[in-house]
This record gives sequence, structure tokens and C-alpha cells, in this order.
Amino acid sequence: MASAALSQESLYALQNKATQLRIESVRATSEAASGHPSSCCSAADIVATLFFSVMRYDPKNPKALNSDRFILSKGHAAPLLYAAWAEAGLFPKSDLLKLRTLASDLEGHPTPRLPFVDMATGSLGQGLPVGIGIALNAKSIDKLDHRTYVLMGDGESVEGSNWEAAEVARQYNLDNLCAIIDVNRLGQSDPTMLQHNMEGYRARWSGFGWHAIVVDGHDIAALVAAFDEAARTKGKPTVLLAKTFKGHGLSFMEDSPNWHGKPVPKGEETQKAIDELTKQLKPGNGTVHINPPAAATLPPATKTALPPSPYKVGDAAATREAFGVAFEALGSANSSVVGLDADVKNSTYTDKFGKKFPNRFLENFIAEQNMVGAAAGFAACGKVPFVATFAAFFTRAYDFIRMAAISQSNIKLVGTHVGVSIGEDGPSQMGLEDIAMMAAQPGVIVLYPSDATCTYRLVEAAANHKGMVYIRAGRPKSTVLYGPEETFPIGGSKVIRQSADDALTIVAAGVTLFEALKAYDQLKAAGIAVRVIDLYSIAPIDQATLIASARATHGRLLTVEDHYAHGGLGDAVLSAVSAEGVKVHKLAVRVIPHSGKPDELVDHFGIGARSIVEATRQIIK
Amino acid sequence: MASAALSQESLYALQNKATQLRIESVRATSEAASGHPSSCCSAADIVATLFFSVMRYDPKNPKALNSDRFILSKGHAAPLLYAAWAEAGLFPKSDLLKLRTLASDLEGHPTPRLPFVDMATGSLGQGLPVGIGIALNAKSIDKLDHRTYVLMGDGESVEGSNWEAAEVARQYNLDNLCAIIDVNRLGQSDPTMLQHNMEGYRARWSGFGWHAIVVDGHDIAALVAAFDEAARTKGKPTVLLAKTFKGHGLSFMEDSPNWHGKPVPKGEETQKAIDELTKQLKPGNGTVHINPPAAATLPPATKTALPPSPYKVGDAAATREAFGVAFEALGSANSSVVGLDADVKNSTYTDKFGKKFPNRFLENFIAEQNMVGAAAGFAACGKVPFVATFAAFFTRAYDFIRMAAISQSNIKLVGTHVGVSIGEDGPSQMGLEDIAMMAAQPGVIVLYPSDATCTYRLVEAAANHKGMVYIRAGRPKSTVLYGPEETFPIGGSKVIRQSADDALTIVAAGVTLFEALKAYDQLKAAGIAVRVIDLYSIAPIDQATLIASARATHGRLLTVEDHYAHGGLGDAVLSAVSAEGVKVHKLAVRVIPHSGKPDELVDHFGIGARSIVEATRQIIK
Repeated sequence: MASAALSQESLYALQNKATQLRIESVRATSEAASGHPSSCCSAADIVATLFFSVMRYDPKNPKALNSDRFILSKGHAAPLLYAAWAEAGLFPKSDLLKLRTLASDLEGHPTPRLPFVDMATGSLGQGLPVGIGIALNAKSIDKLDHRTYVLMGDGESVEGSNWEAAEVARQYNLDNLCAIIDVNRLGQSDPTMLQHNMEGYRARWSGFGWHAIVVDGHDIAALVAAFDEAARTKGKPTVLLAKTFKGHGLSFMEDSPNWHGKPVPKGEETQKAIDELTKQLKPGNGTVHINPPAAATLPPATKTALPPSPYKVGDAAATREAFGVAFEALGSANSSVVGLDADVKNSTYTDKFGKKFPNRFLENFIAEQNMVGAAAGFAACGKVPFVATFAAFFTRAYDFIRMAAISQSNIKLVGTHVGVSIGEDGPSQMGLEDIAMMAAQPGVIVLYPSDATCTYRLVEAAANHKGMVYIRAGRPKSTVLYGPEETFPIGGSKVIRQSADDALTIVAAGVTLFEALKAYDQLKAAGIAVRVIDLYSIAPIDQATLIASARATHGRLLTVEDHYAHGGLGDAVLSAVSAEGVKVHKLAVRVIPHSGKPDELVDHFGIGARSIVEATRQIIK
Repeated sequence: MASAALSQESLYALQNKATQLRIESVRATSEAASGHPSSCCSAADIVATLFFSVMRYDPKNPKALNSDRFILSKGHAAPLLYAAWAEAGLFPKSDLLKLRTLASDLEGHPTPRLPFVDMATGSLGQGLPVGIGIALNAKSIDKLDHRTYVLMGDGESVEGSNWEAAEVARQYNLDNLCAIIDVNRLGQSDPTMLQHNMEGYRARWSGFGWHAIVVDGHDIAALVAAFDEAARTKGKPTVLLAKTFKGHGLSFMEDSPNWHGKPVPKGEETQKAIDELTKQLKPGNGTVHINPPAAATLPPATKTALPPSPYKVGDAAATREAFGVAFEALGSANSSVVGLDADVKNSTYTDKFGKKFPNRFLENFIAEQNMVGAAAGFAACGKVPFVATFAAFFTRAYDFIRMAAISQSNIKLVGTHVGVSIGEDGPSQMGLEDIAMMAAQPGVIVLYPSDATCTYRLVEAAANHKGMVYIRAGRPKSTVLYGPEETFPIGGSKVIRQSADDALTIVAAGVTLFEALKAYDQLKAAGIAVRVIDLYSIAPIDQATLIASARATHGRLLTVEDHYAHGGLGDAVLSAVSAEGVKVHKLAVRVIPHSGKPDELVDHFGIGARSIVEATRQIIK
């Protein structure tokens, strides 16, 4: 056992590392005049034990393939993480004093701008789901023997996302995953619910099937032994429930409720604090040893273009079906592609991929937060994860999507069953705010194919694009408009009806594109020519075509979307032409919808051909 | 014990009710040609036991004050719920055949358009948090002796929100809350993780401190006994873990994985199914008895105007602080107002209210989903709940906000710490998509006060408005612009700088309003007059003033916001003037931001006075 091997000298050396981490956390936050030193101090012994005794990693290359991974889920303890990497030698300790400045990537909470951060944290309860993706990748896909450590706060352990992760980690026997809860008893504004009820924590985690070890989080020898026990525990994940004290090491701060998120004032008080910590340094010349990762190589990922689209003009297929077909083809074409589902795979058609590539498919069950977090974990391992569920249910994971956007994670989200056109299931199942929430995030590509050919090609484009992509897919079958040779660059659009005499341009996508085509026919029969644009790329948007079309059609645009009125396709169009003085009219769903038949609802909620024809007549009057 | 009292005749009568509920669920979904009969059949005995033996309620008045409440968290079993109320006599059984049509409010999933539904369900894992609000209201505020029953699915029990709720319900000893899990073993696309591992369920719920009873969910006598045991269990909530079979009662459907969300085909097959069920009807003339609720009255809620704002022009106060002051005053003025926090009350300043009105304040700890769900529960009891957290963390609860919007719930959300102007904490703590996500939901009022006076009055307006309201509040202190006599109607705006020669109108709110005022001064010094609008109401928006101002300033608008570019204040303005041919330029945060000093970040990310001046010069060139 590692603990037996820990000499007094080694123990002292580790304790000194912990003290050093405390000193640096206090000093950096003091210099920044903001931050969370007390939350660093409670976890300093845990982090010192991990970084300087337990973990195998390359301190000069945090992304080394087989390195153990460390995720600081309690992201507000960032100074502790930064101090650990500085102590490990990745960068000069003097950089720590740039904490929280615009000039440094040592931000208030960790982001992957730093090479040793896999995913941004700071919104609590996100580290464990990310750890699942990383651990599952190691266990089931890349067959690497590294371990994944996730350090959580006790306050954050109430976040439901952790319990989604707990269930999924148990289900997949992730014995290469080790969570540590820094049970320091104090939240931001109150003691935590369970305070130091360590048996209460044990009952919860054991109840969820984890191996749970209660340990004194300030006893480094005990921590070493506990991590060793964790590594020897097979078939299930382990959690260390570490009893600690917030602000440990500083007499004025320890276990005090008044020190959350407060730096020690700069000057005399900081010096006093550092003096108190310095006195705790143990004698002796013991040094720590960082265990190197085992050598590992991976076969190169294979990647080829998708075969031609199997769809012919005039076929009938739902875009969600075409996604499923394309995704299965993508599985063969690109060995890095991974799929994630939350028990709707027979509705989103990811079941096709899942059956063919079971070891690259995570059935995550009904836990959307964990699903998106795990996807970000896979992405941090170089995978290209596709996450598919009903568009409405991505609202459940919006905070995870937000943090993935902050992390500029390479995840792909596919939201099916959008809009009132799903019909009978009613408003709870209708994705009507998905464009708003996805397009709000900088850098997220938002795609909205109308037919199967376009869907097929956009799935390929999404996989090839480095960064987050959202694809919006519908439930009902629609007619295939494009032949297999058609191309759909991200940021493009298709002008599918036009003449020299167009009175107005209709911009649509998805079911409303077909309504626009119906309206086109009806208007044509009445002698009114209109232009129709298939806006398959919402972000980025084809500004040039929109402006040119508006200019060619008397400066009039009519947008139609199966989405709520704010933040949707219409607003994206408005924004693109806003400096042109163009008149834009939006048709969108403006009230809470209702169950009913798809066609009936499209008409009833004002986004059908009838409404388009009426609006057109009104506008051109 | 109730079970002892259950005669054979009564048992038969209850069993017949269950069979009847199955018949009606099959018939209605068959008629609708969509829906989830198998998920109704597994829970039919549970629902029959509750509605016709256990619950005390008025079948003609579902909103009777002291009625036991029933929440169908597994909303896809809606036909079962509808059948129970029809059997209870609330409406004719013939209405059940209008299921899922536009003409009926018996939608695919329940919504509060129906008088017996407190909150829309159908997005899984939301019933229990809502139940917490209702149970806590009964226990701590209104002191009613009704009980709250929440029927959940086994698949949905993985949703983390349930475990947030489990922890909070235990913390507050909600022994008037009873959850039932219909453990029917089968999800939509796969068996559930735990299948029929009933002891696994027990370990989880017991581990979370609940009284857990494993029961045969098709044994009505056992169910009656279990509900009785639940009612007698004091000091903690109870969960019934009911082992059931999906499709129970129909030989071709029972325990089959191929019957999720599938109606029995209309015609012969439906008739066969109904015949099979009809044969299960027991002999005898036993009847069921619905227990009436105990009488109860509540003192009328007080509702008065707030005292004058304590702020004077020129004072310095953050809008989050002013919210805290107003909210405390509101607590005195209106006894229906309730507060909810997720361990940031000393940052959002709801601690003032919490200290003064502890019995109307739920410290929910770090569990934002449960917090919003519980707020909707309070609202369903006639309370006016204010939920405050960092705006960024409302993304965690977006699905709950979405479902509250579908429910047209009377909850008020206050998001503090918006935008890059929070500074050093970095992007994870910056609310930059909150306007997009809130304004996308139809009917949600979105308010964005810039100073303390406006904040104070808008908190009052939010309380007086019937429906969902979101108030966006900032972290840094700002100068008070308005005197206590100023009024701020919802949907209004303030033109705070104007002249006859304005070259352009700047529209802003929050920190950017002050940047606009700085830019105004700088431009004025350079001989350029601009108009400045304080757009404190984003939805609804003051379209008339925006259009009039645009017309008066050469058709030029410049919007500036501490929010991402898509779906924010700028897009709301664009949408309001879109039919006018006005030119609108948007300044907003267009990339993932970074830690730094607030002023520095406002400037760096292009929303400060410097950018406003530059943009103005560019536009008017």
C-alpha cells in the first residue's frame, strides 16, 4: 500500500507542498483583491496529495495521452489549481500574481484557454459529468489506463447533475473515475445542508452504488491510503468524502462562515497570513516525485468523406431520419465520432449509429445534463461527440451548453422535434426556443436543414467543423428538394425561387420553407412573384444573399419560422440586414402553443401558407 | 390502518376503477392515434388507489384550498390523469375522446389550462420540485393539512432535478409530501438502468433520508397500506417504490419493450384490448368513496403599494442592492410574497428579506432546478414567489423556466451579476444570454433597470403583474438617475437625453446606459448631439418611443448592451422597428469574455463609451 511506503520525510514534503499551495492561493487572491482563498485552503492537502504523490502525469505536457486527468469541479478554487501546476513546474510561480487580470489566462475560474483545463468550471456540478466522458473514453474507446480525478465542493454536491453522473458512472462501472468531495461544511451564505455529517454523505453515494471512503481531508497519509484504495477498487467508481475545514491553516479564517469569496486584504494582513502558513512548513529535505504517465499510443483516427446522399429529389423523409442515416454513415467514415443519447434514440434515430458502433455510443438514460457534460469530456479527449435529443430537452442542459461554449468545446448538438409541427404531444415537447439559446452563445454554428439531402451534408459539415455546432431537425416527413450533388457550405443559403419581378423575399427553413413554397404557388397563381430563400445556416448567416435579395425585392423581407418570435431565425435575419434600412416582417409562434395535428397547428399559430400569403399581400399593398 | 379496513367489496370497487382507467386510457389514445397507453396501464392501480381511496379532495372543485394535491410528473401518462378526473366526476367521460385535439385542453401532456393541473409536466423530473413548493407552502406558510402526491416514472427518476428535490424535501422534513415511483422497468428505447432492482431504488432514497416503501404497484390493498404508512410517517418525506409492469392488464402489451408511446390501432385491435380489460372487472356492487378535504380558510392576502423609493438622484447603488431593499419592503407590503435562494443570498441581497420573513423564505441551497420548480409550486398555491440568483445560473433551470412559461406561472425571476461588468470572476459567472432565454418565452416580462430607483419600482411592478417576470440586475454600483417620484410602467422607456438636432438615438440599459451617457458627453463636447433612451422594459418594448426617436434622429438607432449579440436588447429593438426601414447598429459582447476589471472589460469587449463614440461617428459619417 502506498500509505505504508510514505516515509516521514515524504510526508513532510507533501505537507509542505500543501502549505505552499495555501501560501500561493492566499498571495494571488490578495494581489487580485478578489477570489476564494478559504475554498483553496480546505482542499490544499487533497490537491497536494494528488499532484505530488498519486497522479501520473507529465508536468510539462498536460495533454500527454495517458496522463491522469484532474478536473476542478469547484472552479472557484482556481488559484489552488494554478498553484499546483506552477509547483509542478508548468509555468513560473510569478505568473500566479497575474490571477484574474485581462493579461493572463489564470482567470477567476478555470477555462480551457489553459492547457491543463479540459472544460471550464465555475458553474457548479459540471466536473463529474465531464469526468464521465473522459473516463469512459479511456475505458471503452481508447483503452488507456489513466485515471480521472474530479474534485468537488460539498455545497455543489447538491446540484442534481452530480447524481445523474453518479448513476451513469455506476452503470458503466467506471472504476477509473474517482471523485473527491471537499466537505468543508460551509457554503457561500450558510453552512451546507449536511455540514460534517459524513455518514450522510456515505449513505447517499453508497446508495448510488459507489465505493465511498470517508477520510480526514487534512491527513495526507490517510489521503494517500484512500486514493490507493480507490485505485484498487474494481467494477465501480470511488468517492473520497474528505472532511475538511474551510480556510484550514489560517487561524482567523478556519471554519469561519465569513470568509467565503474574500481575499485577505493586501499588505500587513496578507503578510501575517503568509507568516502563519510559513511557520507550518516542516523540517527536512524531503522532495516530492511526480509519477510519469505510462507510455501510450493510439492508432491514427480514420477519416473519409461521407458517401453521396442516398436521397433523391421528391423522396419523403424527416430531417431527423436523415440525421440518423448520415450519423450512421459518419460512424464508418470517421472513427473519432461518438454518439450520446438520453433514451430517445428511437425518435432521433441515433439508434442506427448505436447498433453499429456500440463502443462509441453512450446510452446516458434520461439525464440530459450529464449527457452534454460527458460529451464535453469526450471532446476533451479529441473525440467528435454528437449529442441528440428533442430540441426542447436541450433547455435542461443549457448551463452545460453555455459552459461548453465558454470552453469552445468540439461538441455537436442535434435537436429534433422542433416547433409546433410535432403536433399532438403538445407544448412541453416542442422545441421553440432552441435557436435563441444556441445562437446566443458566441461561436456556436446553428444549422437548420429543410430536407434530407441538406441534413445529410450538414451532419458531415458539423463533424468537419472544429467547434460547437447545433443542428435543428424536425419530426414530420418532408419532400427532398435537393439532389445528392448539391453542396451546403456553413454560412450559406439557397435561393430556391426567384424571378426578375419579385415583390418580396420570403426567408424560411424547416417546415415553414414548405409552407413558403405553397404560398409561392398560391401567390404566383394570383400574379404575385416572390423570392424564397432556404436559410439552412442561421449562424453564421448569409448576409450577402439576404441583403442582395432584399434589395432586389423592394427592400422587403418576410421571415417565417416554427420557433418563438424572439431570438429565432427572424431575429438573425433582422440582425444581418439591420444596417440596410430593409423592412422585415416576422411570422413566428407568438403564444404558448397547444396539442393538435401538425398541419393544423402550423396554420393555427400563424406560420403556415395562409399566413404567409396574407402577410405578403399586406406588405406589398 | 386503512388496509385493514378495506373490505373485499371495496377492494373490488377500487380494482374496477383501475380497470376502468385502463380502458379509458386505451380508448382515448386509440382515438387520438397517439399517446402512451402502456405508461398509463402501469400506473392505473396507483392512481385509482389515490383518487378513490387515499386522497381527500373535492372532485367538483380541484382548487379547493385544503385538497390533497396530485402531480403527474410522468406527464406522458396524461390520459390516465384525465380518466381519473372524469371518473371522479369533474367532466363527462365522453370528453376523453377529444384527447390531443386542438379543440380540447386534454392535451398530450397536462398543462394548467386544466383546473386540476398545478404545473405543466411532460419534461421529466419536474413534478417533485413543484411538489416541494406546494408541500412547503402547506407546512410552513398556509399551515394547511393537505398532502401532496407526486407520481414519477422510473426512467425519469434519473433526472438530477429529482435528487435536488429529494435533498431539499428531507432538509425541511416534508412529511406531507409523498412521491410514488412507477417502476415499470422499461424506458422509451431501453430497459431502465435499475430495471426491477427495487432494493437499488430503496438504497438511493433511504440514503437521501427518505422513508422508502417498496410495494407491489398492482396490489391495491398493499398500496392502500403503503399510503397509510406514508401518512403516518412523521419528520421525513416518504417515497413509494411501486414495482409495476408497463402495459399491465393487456397481455400483448404487458412488459413488452415495443409499446412505448404507441396507441393500440383503432378498430378491431382496440376492441380486443378493451374486451380483455373488461373481462377483468370484478363482480359486486362495491362503490368507491372520495374523501372530502377538511374545511380551511386563509386570511386574505395583503397587497399594498411600496413606500417611496429610499434612493435620491446621485446616490450610488448597485441594482442588485436596490432589488434587495425593494424585496424586503415588498415582504412587509404583501404577505403573499415568497423568496427563494440557492446559496447566493448575500450576493443577490435576498438575505434582507430572508432574515425578516424566515417562514416565507426558502433557502434551497445550490440546486437551481429545484428552486425554480418549487417557486412554481408556491405560485400554484397563490403565492408570489421571487427567485433570485446569478443570471448565469438561471441557464441551469431553463427547462423549468420553459415549463413555467408554458404554465403561465406567476413566478418572478431576478438575475443578478449580468454581463462582463462583473469583472474578475470571469465568463462562467457572467449572465450574457439571459435576455435571449427569457424573452424567447411568450408572455414573460423582461425588465432591465439601470438605477436603484427604477429597480425599486420594477420590483413592485413585478409583484403586481400577474404572470412571469424577469428582472435583470447588475453587480457594480451605479449612479441613481431618477428621483423617488418617477414612475416606470411595464412596457415603457425613458428618453433621458434629447435635443432637436440629435444625429442618432442610443438605446441602452444597465451599465451600458452609463456608458451611453459618457459617450453623450464626449460627443456633445465634439458638437454632436445624440438622443439616449433608457430601455428598462425589453419585453414588452416601447415600440412607439423607439420608432418616434428613430424618425427624429435620421432613422438611426445604436443599441448597446452587456449581453451577447443574439437575442438581447438589440434584437428586441430591431424587432420593434423592423417594419420601419430604420437602420440599427448593435454593440454587444461578440466573443467569449475573460476575467479582468469591470471597466476594463466593458471597454475591451466593445460596449463602452469609446466604442459608442466610435460607432456613432462611423454611422453618422
